[in-house]
Amino acid sequence: MIKTFHHAVQIYYEDTDHSGVVYHANFLKYFERAREHVLGGDIINMLWQDKGCGFAVYKANMIFKEGVEFADICDIRTTFKLDGKFKTLWHHEVWRPNAVKPAVIGDIVMVYLDKKKQLKPMPSEIISI
Amino acid sequence: MIKTFHHAVQIYYEDTDHSGVVYHANFLKYFERAREHVLGGDIINMLWQDKGCGFAVYKANMIFKEGVEFADICDIRTTFKLDGKFKTLWHHEVWRPNAVKPAVIGDIVMVYLDKKKQLKPMPSEIISI
Amino acid sequence: MIKTFHHAVQIYYEDTDHSGVVYHANFLKYFERAREHVLGGDIINMLWQDKGCGFAVYKANMIFKEGVEFADICDIRTTFKLDGKFKTLWHHEVWRPNAVKPAVIGDIVMVYLDKKKQLKPMPSEIISI
Amino acid sequence: MIKTFHHAVQIYYEDTDHSGVVYHANFLKYFERAREHVLGGDIINMLWQDKGCGFAVYKANMIFKEGVEFADICDIRTTFKLDGKFKTLWHHEVWRPNAVKPAVIGDIVMVYLDKKKQLKPMPSEIISI
Repeated sequence: MIKTFHHAVQIYYEDTDHSGVVYHANFLKYFERAREHVLGGDIINMLWQDKGCGFAVYKANMIFKEGVEFADICDIRTTFKLDGKFKTLWHHEVWRPNAVKPAVIGDIVMVYLDKKKQLKPMPSEIISI
Repeated sequence: MIKTFHHAVQIYYEDTDHSGVVYHANFLKYFERAREHVLGGDIINMLWQDKGCGFAVYKANMIFKEGVEFADICDIRTTFKLDGKFKTLWHHEVWRPNAVKPAVIGDIVMVYLDKKKQLKPMPSEIISI
Repeated sequence: MIKTFHHAVQIYYEDTDHSGVVYHANFLKYFERAREHVLGGDIINMLWQDKGCGFAVYKANMIFKEGVEFADICDIRTTFKLDGKFKTLWHHEVWRPNAVKPAVIGDIVMVYLDKKKQLKPMPSEIISI
Repeated sequence: MIKTFHHAVQIYYEDTDHSGVVYHANFLKYFERAREHVLGGDIINMLWQDKGCGFAVYKANMIFKEGVEFADICDIRTTFKLDGKFKTLWHHEVWRPNAVKPAVIGDIVMVYLDKKKQLKPMPSEIISI
């Protein structure tokens, strides 16, 4: 069974553009916030400070099905799995209040890099989640 | 007695810049998020949809005393008062975890405008807070 | 022959994050800037003001091959083609100074919507480009 | 005679919010872009890489007089002067096309810090401008 993680995002003025809905690039931010809550900000920070390693997005595929509006409180639903030693695959969905299907869907391939931007195997802290 | 409102902001990758701390302009975003929680997203939305009016920042004075770092969970402390019929004055402070003084301070003058950007008296919904 | 459009983007503090390189979501912004220069800000504005229609990103596929750093002046290389009446397909590449291959690649499906978010055929202003 | 520096900023979707004008925090970004063009991205980068020092905003006072709209190409007019050994004072104005007065005005106090966030005297590279 794959666990679904939930993260709430409220839409503020800063998130919208003059067309009246959330600016498309911002959904990548919400996905990253969701991942940071799954992994833990403290753990990400510790890996960076102590081991000099951090996570980076290698690929992102997104589908924008519906506009998301000011003051919406969205549920970002996230699942992830390991793909070999070097990658994790993340699936994110943005659910508006009372929606019957997601407004935006994103599939992200994340890797783990040292400060020279060399690929490293996923750390045990992540595997244990 | 002026009431202090508290709003938590977690610092994500998106908030920082390559100097290692939060990019200065982002504090204006956190202040706005805090104000939206005081006023209520639903009320702001209703005023915009039904009356065609919205809030706008007229002046902003900020002091940046200390850098704020990735994974910090900050407490945005906010007070506000009316200043005549047309203005509200907001005082915001950014408190890092375990801090003895605020990292960033902002004083904001907010006005209320119709869609033609004409000044309107503050609505009763705000006065009642 | 498909024409390649060039758009220069300088990397400022605002673009980077604390890992030292450009925050991944920002590349979607640079791609949109490039598209706006191809289409023309005035034309996009006219279609919105006069016809109540605007462009929206429907799909975005991105590959992040290399970090982009502060003060880089990148060349955003863009091609596009129509795909039926309702879609345009855009290919964007981010080239760092003196690079031999692109740092980031994006493929974007763009649609054209009215204010009720209903799909409309691409306007003649775009077809003529 | 104080020299006025000019920097052009085009307003894209990313810059606006759902009220139809530029989101207020973004003007701090345009001011920083203008300062980076005055100082030189390469010089800022060299000071950071070689000396481990960078510029930081210590105070910002802003007045928002008029909304700025999508597709506007604004002229950011900038002057600056030294204030003792440790501060530079920057005055920025945002001029919309064909405007008779600035839409937004900002006064910024900038300092120079090492990586431990300790105050350093302004470097000779800046004084010579």
